[in-house]
Amino acid sequence: MNPVRGTGKKAIVLLSGGLDSATTLYYAGSKGYDCRCLIFDYGQRHRKEIESAKKIARSRGAAYEVMKFGLPWKGSALLDGKIPLPGKGALRKKGKGIPPTYVPARNTIFLSFAVSYAETIGASAVFIGANAVDFSGYPDCRPEYYRVFDKLVKRGTKAGAGKKKIRIFTPLIYKTKAEIIKLGTKLGVPYEYTWSCYAGGKRPCLKCDSCVFRGKGFKEAGVRDPLLKIMKA
Amino acid sequence: MNPVRGTGKKAIVLLSGGLDSATTLYYAGSKGYDCRCLIFDYGQRHRKEIESAKKIARSRGAAYEVMKFGLPWKGSALLDGKIPLPGKGALRKKGKGIPPTYVPARNTIFLSFAVSYAETIGASAVFIGANAVDFSGYPDCRPEYYRVFDKLVKRGTKAGAGKKKIRIFTPLIYKTKAEIIKLGTKLGVPYEYTWSCYAGGKRPCLKCDSCVFRGKGFKEAGVRDPLLKIMKA
Repeated sequence: MNPVRGTGKKAIVLLSGGLDSATTLYYAGSKGYDCRCLIFDYGQRHRKEIESAKKIARSRGAAYEVMKFGLPWKGSALLDGKIPLPGKGALRKKGKGIPPTYVPARNTIFLSFAVSYAETIGASAVFIGANAVDFSGYPDCRPEYYRVFDKLVKRGTKAGAGKKKIRIFTPLIYKTKAEIIKLGTKLGVPYEYTWSCYAGGKRPCLKCDSCVFRGKGFKEAGVRDPLLKIMKA
Repeated sequence: MNPVRGTGKKAIVLLSGGLDSATTLYYAGSKGYDCRCLIFDYGQRHRKEIESAKKIARSRGAAYEVMKFGLPWKGSALLDGKIPLPGKGALRKKGKGIPPTYVPARNTIFLSFAVSYAETIGASAVFIGANAVDFSGYPDCRPEYYRVFDKLVKRGTKAGAGKKKIRIFTPLIYKTKAEIIKLGTKLGVPYEYTWSCYAGGKRPCLKCDSCVFRGKGFKEAGVRDPLLKIMKA
């Protein structure tokens, strides 16, 4: 698929390698944005997602940057091998608390870099595949958080002070995992490239929160997960 | 000077090596906070400030972390040697536009890391030496920006969702450079360790915006800049 160029609408897309962000990239592309992807290498256990993210960007013909940094204070099961990942029974509903895979202020860090990149290249949009429905209880996945961040960008950037505003878009925020998969399937997202498992093994563990949400989503969407198809082959 | 410990009040202090952040550290210490400093190595021209920041942290007996990352997109005269620094005549007043030393979304990036650190160690405060009076026209130095950031922290962190809130403090925001220097002199800030010059030479250039503000501040405070005293010796 060719990238959409020449419309003059540039966007930064946060790409994790998971299915939400992959769908977001294809969605932004379908809206006519010339997308640049931002991938983070921050010491996550599931480093496999970085290679997945690159594959997804290339599949859409989008340029990407990999931002590398470490959080010396760790503070999350995703960064610290000593903290156990929540197990299969941990599938939680809203209000049931924040799981140990929460990385303190992660989305704020990711979005700040995205805004810095956007402002530098003159992009008018930042897309993030945050989701408040089938989510893990992360506070930085809630719509009200993004509304405040959008305001912050207006106040804290050169772009915000001028005529060219940068907006934060969360097109998946109110969708269920099944709805996201249906949308992505229509847009041609190569889900076989996406990676959701937190454990960082060769195959998805099918036990962690993230694997459980993915499995449930594909089942409800009535679509076979192409990643599992490849893994079984 | 001994660090204040055992009060149970922990704070993260953003430390650049300049005189504003050094004064902020000593101020937070004087208010009974057990301070941890956060220093950024982000490819700035004036890398000398990193060593200055470490010296200042040690002078107050405060632990520090150095966060290292690069901004591949640069976008500022502070990061890109090809963009000239504003000259001596560039001393500007509010509303006179944003100078080329502005780093897109820099304070948002810095604050996000500080909040991540604060949340991990259970600190209740983040201190930043932002200043809206004798400032260079940076949009992320305005009080309204910090008010929105404070709100963002409430919405986007585990701490914000619980009882233990993290607050953003900008104790210097309404002070003139001269007032800051007077306060710091009273608190015993070792200004000879601070570094303000953007140019990154062995001695301050005395020509860049930052040198000009510093010189004017010491003059108005009626204090001799101890850094210049050392340099001349």
